[in-house]
Amino acid sequence: MRGVVLHAPGDVRVEHRNDPAIIDPTDAIIRISATCVCGSDLWDYRGIHPVKDPMPIGHEYCGIVEEVGAEVTTIRPGQFVIGSFTASDNTCPHCLAGYQSSCEHRQYVGAGGAQAEALRVPLADGTLVATPGLPDDELLPSLLTASDVLGTGWFAAVAAGVRPGSTAVVVGDGAVGLLGVLSARQLGAERIIVMSRHESRQKLARVFGATDIVTERGDDGVAQIKELTAGLGADAVLECVGTGESFEQALRSARPGGGVGIVGLPHGVTVSGRDLFLSHVRVAGGPAPVRRFLPELIELIWEGRIDPGQVFDLALPLDRAADGYAAMDSRRAVKALLRP
Amino acid sequence: MRGVVLHAPGDVRVEHRNDPAIIDPTDAIIRISATCVCGSDLWDYRGIHPVKDPMPIGHEYCGIVEEVGAEVTTIRPGQFVIGSFTASDNTCPHCLAGYQSSCEHRQYVGAGGAQAEALRVPLADGTLVATPGLPDDELLPSLLTASDVLGTGWFAAVAAGVRPGSTAVVVGDGAVGLLGVLSARQLGAERIIVMSRHESRQKLARVFGATDIVTERGDDGVAQIKELTAGLGADAVLECVGTGESFEQALRSARPGGGVGIVGLPHGVTVSGRDLFLSHVRVAGGPAPVRRFLPELIELIWEGRIDPGQVFDLALPLDRAADGYAAMDSRRAVKALLRP
Repeated sequence: MRGVVLHAPGDVRVEHRNDPAIIDPTDAIIRISATCVCGSDLWDYRGIHPVKDPMPIGHEYCGIVEEVGAEVTTIRPGQFVIGSFTASDNTCPHCLAGYQSSCEHRQYVGAGGAQAEALRVPLADGTLVATPGLPDDELLPSLLTASDVLGTGWFAAVAAGVRPGSTAVVVGDGAVGLLGVLSARQLGAERIIVMSRHESRQKLARVFGATDIVTERGDDGVAQIKELTAGLGADAVLECVGTGESFEQALRSARPGGGVGIVGLPHGVTVSGRDLFLSHVRVAGGPAPVRRFLPELIELIWEGRIDPGQVFDLALPLDRAADGYAAMDSRRAVKALLRP
Repeated sequence: MRGVVLHAPGDVRVEHRNDPAIIDPTDAIIRISATCVCGSDLWDYRGIHPVKDPMPIGHEYCGIVEEVGAEVTTIRPGQFVIGSFTASDNTCPHCLAGYQSSCEHRQYVGAGGAQAEALRVPLADGTLVATPGLPDDELLPSLLTASDVLGTGWFAAVAAGVRPGSTAVVVGDGAVGLLGVLSARQLGAERIIVMSRHESRQKLARVFGATDIVTERGDDGVAQIKELTAGLGADAVLECVGTGESFEQALRSARPGGGVGIVGLPHGVTVSGRDLFLSHVRVAGGPAPVRRFLPELIELIWEGRIDPGQVFDLALPLDRAADGYAAMDSRRAVKALLRP
């Protein structure tokens, strides 16, 4: 089959790879209908995470089950399925508590490289969720977002504590931040302030439900947020970047008793215990337990109540994956969808 | 009047001070019935917080209202009252949200030095809570704890997310930690594990409801907690110390999806964003909004349902305040009560 392989920073190639095969009796093999490039793939692409050997890449996927192992009982060949980047048994205490990304038997699905024609998914029964039927082609982008970027934005909103009537701030206008806006809206936030400097992203944020845009950063950004919230700060802040600056921005944007949801893997972030303490702000988050939200997200998409697929502003055949990486790296594209 | 004055590290004196007087029309003057030495006073006593000029000290108090300002409407002379170390209007949005220690008009009551015969309390209506009548003498120690140390332990349990059936860990066996145990029990925790190496404190922890004691620290401490919690970690961890070691101990003792409540002012604590993120643990807390809990705590004490006053293992006349500081500094006493 064909699959994307990262050879070195900036060096993305689509090459022939061995077809995936069942290894464990709990595996499934999926024929990929759509996959995409994640902001976190850029950490590898940019060499911030060193790449030693040529590495299959990609961890967002949806598609049709081709084969299942002998112990798979709920997932069947022919079903259209979506799964998270973390394979989980969905039965251990951490899974039952809703933290499938801390599953006692978790495996990183992306190790197999989801930007490909086919993918092996471990722990298929606990990881994959089937749609009610085979989806129309135009639903594919939205369904694909549920695999990671929508589930992650949704978790940001949940972890931040968005409730009906909340005032929310979204730090970050990447795909996760934009879908954080959509999620905050779905969870009932009345006012949603997005910190963004890019006109096209501001526009999409408004489509997804943003009510206010703040272009300032740092002290000025905090002052703007305070001005928009009667001097109080926001009830819930979605931190969708993962840098020291963005974390500080988020912490300072929340009101005492408010919450910050962190979903971007922190790079070089150290938090002052004293700042955290004096802020009276609750911090929660981590690797999104996407599996927790998949049934609900699939239902919302299937019924046409949300259209998160709009986050893809570039769609390419898999063979042009390198163009998708380059476009996202230079911020010409928010998110690139790839069709095998 | 007589009052405690800290002159320099280790130099605590009881001296003549001017009687407090009404300054603002929202003030009250209280005749102190009982006061005490707080673990946080030791930061000053030990010179960790530098003392420039002789400083009246103490911020825990209960007593009888002597005089009120012209704008005080709910508090009356003759009432027995308890207040927090933070004066709050109890009407601003932060107060209404339950974060009175972030009140828009907050003042530090301790600036007046509560270890004295009398004390000026600003914002009396929003700060003080009257008991149903004049208390018997034996209730004084318990009522005094509500002023800070019990309210702070209670907030640790609330911020950590203790619920009926929870497994809780308490890091720290000082007065706050011990009353954190009592609080976790009251909030319904079924299993309460205390990290303590001091036999007398372990004993009191058991009186307050601890079910297990862990004497190990660091990796061994975490291993013990995991062993006691089926490998999972605790639902709720009360961090009642405020050092880097205690914070790390707390974070590593909680299960994914669990919470850490921080109530000890952090000294030199920096938190790795990545550790926090990967832990899946929620962190909340800060300066305890004691005022939120005062009515409930007073009721529990008044009805004899809790006896937090046992945390005082030393009671001295005010004139011997220096002995109280020395006993706590050397950990010979958990907490010293002072009677003017």
